[in-house]
Amino acid sequence: MEAKAKANGPRYGDSSARVVDGPTNPMVSPLLTDLYQFTMAYAYWKAGKHKERAVFDLYFRKNPFGGEYTIFAGLEECIRLIANFKFTEEEISFIKKSLPSSCEDAFYDYLRGINCSDVEVYAISEGSAVFPKVPLVRVEGPVAVVQLLETPFVNLINYASLVATNAARHRFVAGKSKILLEFGLRRAQGPDGGISASKYCYIGGFDATSNVAAGRLFGIPLRGTHSHAFVSSFMSPDEIIDKSLRSSDGSRTCEDFLSVVQMWLSKIQWLPSLHGTFGDTNQSELAAFTSYALAFPTDFLALVDTYDVIRSGIPNFCAVALALNDLGYQAKGIRLDSGDLAYLSCEARKFFMAIEKEFGVPGFGKISISASNDLNEETLDALNKQGHEVDAFGIGTYLVTCYAQAALGCVFKLVEINNQPRIKLSEDVSKVSIPCKKRIFRLYGKEGYPLVDIMSGENEPAPKVGERILCRHPFNESKRAYVVPQQVEELLKCYWTGKSGKAAERLPALKDIRNRCIKQLEKMRPDHMRRLNPTPYKVSVSAKLYDFIHFLWLNEAPVGELQ
Amino acid sequence: MEAKAKANGPRYGDSSARVVDGPTNPMVSPLLTDLYQFTMAYAYWKAGKHKERAVFDLYFRKNPFGGEYTIFAGLEECIRLIANFKFTEEEISFIKKSLPSSCEDAFYDYLRGINCSDVEVYAISEGSAVFPKVPLVRVEGPVAVVQLLETPFVNLINYASLVATNAARHRFVAGKSKILLEFGLRRAQGPDGGISASKYCYIGGFDATSNVAAGRLFGIPLRGTHSHAFVSSFMSPDEIIDKSLRSSDGSRTCEDFLSVVQMWLSKIQWLPSLHGTFGDTNQSELAAFTSYALAFPTDFLALVDTYDVIRSGIPNFCAVALALNDLGYQAKGIRLDSGDLAYLSCEARKFFMAIEKEFGVPGFGKISISASNDLNEETLDALNKQGHEVDAFGIGTYLVTCYAQAALGCVFKLVEINNQPRIKLSEDVSKVSIPCKKRIFRLYGKEGYPLVDIMSGENEPAPKVGERILCRHPFNESKRAYVVPQQVEELLKCYWTGKSGKAAERLPALKDIRNRCIKQLEKMRPDHMRRLNPTPYKVSVSAKLYDFIHFLWLNEAPVGELQ
Repeated sequence: MEAKAKANGPRYGDSSARVVDGPTNPMVSPLLTDLYQFTMAYAYWKAGKHKERAVFDLYFRKNPFGGEYTIFAGLEECIRLIANFKFTEEEISFIKKSLPSSCEDAFYDYLRGINCSDVEVYAISEGSAVFPKVPLVRVEGPVAVVQLLETPFVNLINYASLVATNAARHRFVAGKSKILLEFGLRRAQGPDGGISASKYCYIGGFDATSNVAAGRLFGIPLRGTHSHAFVSSFMSPDEIIDKSLRSSDGSRTCEDFLSVVQMWLSKIQWLPSLHGTFGDTNQSELAAFTSYALAFPTDFLALVDTYDVIRSGIPNFCAVALALNDLGYQAKGIRLDSGDLAYLSCEARKFFMAIEKEFGVPGFGKISISASNDLNEETLDALNKQGHEVDAFGIGTYLVTCYAQAALGCVFKLVEINNQPRIKLSEDVSKVSIPCKKRIFRLYGKEGYPLVDIMSGENEPAPKVGERILCRHPFNESKRAYVVPQQVEELLKCYWTGKSGKAAERLPALKDIRNRCIKQLEKMRPDHMRRLNPTPYKVSVSAKLYDFIHFLWLNEAPVGELQ
Repeated sequence: MEAKAKANGPRYGDSSARVVDGPTNPMVSPLLTDLYQFTMAYAYWKAGKHKERAVFDLYFRKNPFGGEYTIFAGLEECIRLIANFKFTEEEISFIKKSLPSSCEDAFYDYLRGINCSDVEVYAISEGSAVFPKVPLVRVEGPVAVVQLLETPFVNLINYASLVATNAARHRFVAGKSKILLEFGLRRAQGPDGGISASKYCYIGGFDATSNVAAGRLFGIPLRGTHSHAFVSSFMSPDEIIDKSLRSSDGSRTCEDFLSVVQMWLSKIQWLPSLHGTFGDTNQSELAAFTSYALAFPTDFLALVDTYDVIRSGIPNFCAVALALNDLGYQAKGIRLDSGDLAYLSCEARKFFMAIEKEFGVPGFGKISISASNDLNEETLDALNKQGHEVDAFGIGTYLVTCYAQAALGCVFKLVEINNQPRIKLSEDVSKVSIPCKKRIFRLYGKEGYPLVDIMSGENEPAPKVGERILCRHPFNESKRAYVVPQQVEELLKCYWTGKSGKAAERLPALKDIRNRCIKQLEKMRPDHMRRLNPTPYKVSVSAKLYDFIHFLWLNEAPVGELQ
């Protein structure tokens, strides 16, 4: 796939020194857009307006999951799209077939020549904490071209940011010390729902994925052992033919590893501290565990709930782990995939501790316990409250499908054309757009926390450290506050300059995006982060921009007549 | 994209006459699976079990969206995957890097040779109404190979079936006479979340999509006009340079179409029946509508809510539509994207009727009204209850992300290996798997409705028309009923035979799958279909299979000891 994506190559010889690979998913093409972007392109072209320089803001209106922050992600894929934006002849002829036959042929010549060399993209760095109404991306360029980018940009950013935020929220509840594994591929919304989920959950703070394709594409660490089917595919220990296992140091070979396992099982069974916990364990499970250990003596991690965790899975696991221990191998751990995870993990821990104590196997008590099975923020929180002994969580469905809120509502609004600011009105004030080409600054307070994001017109002076500045709510006239910033960070950076010759930011590596995300969240004031009734982070406009918004609003809104 | 998918070609020379294209999304490869499928494959191989013939059932446990039916979709993509299932050397070396270095080299030779020529796939026809616990797909083949298919099969079927079901539910509420448009690309979970949504919503009964890539890949009808940005990109009518428009029959040219529009606007303004409804309309909107009509005189459909629907959008639209009418063109309609859609659509209809009456323009009153803006099953239902005049609904976010329930829980369970039936137990009875290689029959009653699905062992005689048969709930011994079927339909058909030489079903065209879906739902008894408290459709097992399940269950479950 990597090879394929690269083969797409940059489709036009851009004068900048950078070569940007094509989109990770080859299905991301200039046709991945809404038909109305083409009908509009035609209407702009027909009116001679297609080259008018337009500025669009991409932003969302509300943080997801009842929280007060969002992680911005998906930027790199947008840049990969525009760096290689060019219609093929096949695509042109499909567009022609899809538009009315009355459309003039010269329009298709225009489409043939389109690329993003006249487009500039300013964006907040991927992996940043971001807030409602603040443009995540500002796209400038010929209006017809930038409109074509609306749908793919919003598509590439909406889910990426949503699932990265979901991952960050899971990390927040789980705590820093736990291992978080993304197991969502099978339940994701389509193949690259799965692949993107793996990428953006990693950015949001997960440690690894089960998804091999994502591991290959993005270098994300992979994890996985076996399923219930593996366990039930064995009928009995008689099936195991080759029972020999070399010791860890290679010094000797145990010819009948199965007998050692069985010996340990009966020893455990008669341990005074465990006596009565279990009787006969399931023999197909014992065979499966033994066989798995023979294949992976250095990586033995067993799923223990196929038949019965306490009465079969854990004792069978311990017998195999002790037999491995005899040969110098350390078992990796167990996975629980059903039942009361808090209770079962505590019981497993007690069992392991008892074995460590009774047989003097150092470290056995600390064997890793993984848990999976429909976990989400709420169940992690509930597990924390009950107390549990889980070291690693495998999270799938609720994480990757963003079950608690399956969409982020990013929009892409025209804010300026031909240097004229534009506004989109709505009866719902929260849907009124903030006009003008803007700059955005994050102002930090004395304690190092970010206090407020402020948007101002392009030509206003930037806020200065130590100087008092008035921050106004964009639509509520009574909400305003003076801030004396201790640090000022400009948020929008140039990520694509086309042929303008300006320098553009380099696209950072995935690990660096992940680190940015983790650090940004650590820097947030804790009350913005809490799960219950978090404090909204403030987003404001400068006094000058405030006045201008309201001037434009009055100008555009029709005056009603009461009758 | 089509070309790429085809270029993947069948990767091995299969003896069947069929050539099946590769997956629609080139990211669907044999690596699109969980790592544990490879660790298990190694453990099976190491134990010499990898070629044991296994049978897996793919099924779900609960219908989505609080309903009592599901539409099965995604089969074709599964067949495309297995028809071309082969590891590249690059993929092999990545797998090698991902497994412990202790794994033997000969295993990778084994992987190199893997394809699906020994695999058989039986499935219910795509587009069918299906029910919990009934296998949608039965996959048979060497255990190691079939395990590798688990994750991609479940991935390809889960979301496809979920979103097709969601679409069918939206169609059910909207009624047959409405046009349903899928507008979800921008909010979908990733690029092919969008593309698959378009495909499977079409199967579920939608009429068209806005997604150009999906239109191209699958031949789905495309729809789209313009957005708010198009409207606000215009400042005033002065911007319109070329104002000429040829009449529909080509007989004459109106040199100043804009003046005709303006003339009509003032006429409407002073119509006694509309007087006072509006004053000055927004001029940037008027310019945009006029310009759009000049570009698309035969397809004029305007988004009327950028400034104010009643006071600006509708009068502006009508002025342009009447000017078009003078030249022999018929305007297509309006789209509402905010506000009270029931009220606004009724007001728009009244306005159109008044114009038809006052100016004697036949058909003007029936101009199409489209509505969009966060629609879902509930809002469609509420609109129906309030009464509305909407002819077409554009549905996005809630449809494609399946917001009401973002995942379907399809699972893939081992039911037989080496001719030995297997069962997966669970403390939660609903999670116990139904063992054995099975056949499934749908039994129809006197009135033509399907009554019950019954699963039976492979070698049991099929139910016969007119003969009484006992249908038992698989786990609840008191739930059973005799049925005398008037028609018996075997549900699982062979869709992939590998090299066995058996005949396999042809993959039907998308339209045929869509027709199947629509017909199947029409055939269902209405109480299974209703939104509130639908009656569950019955799923049963034969008496013989029932006895066998419970024999195996007792055999595998450990016996507890009360203390």
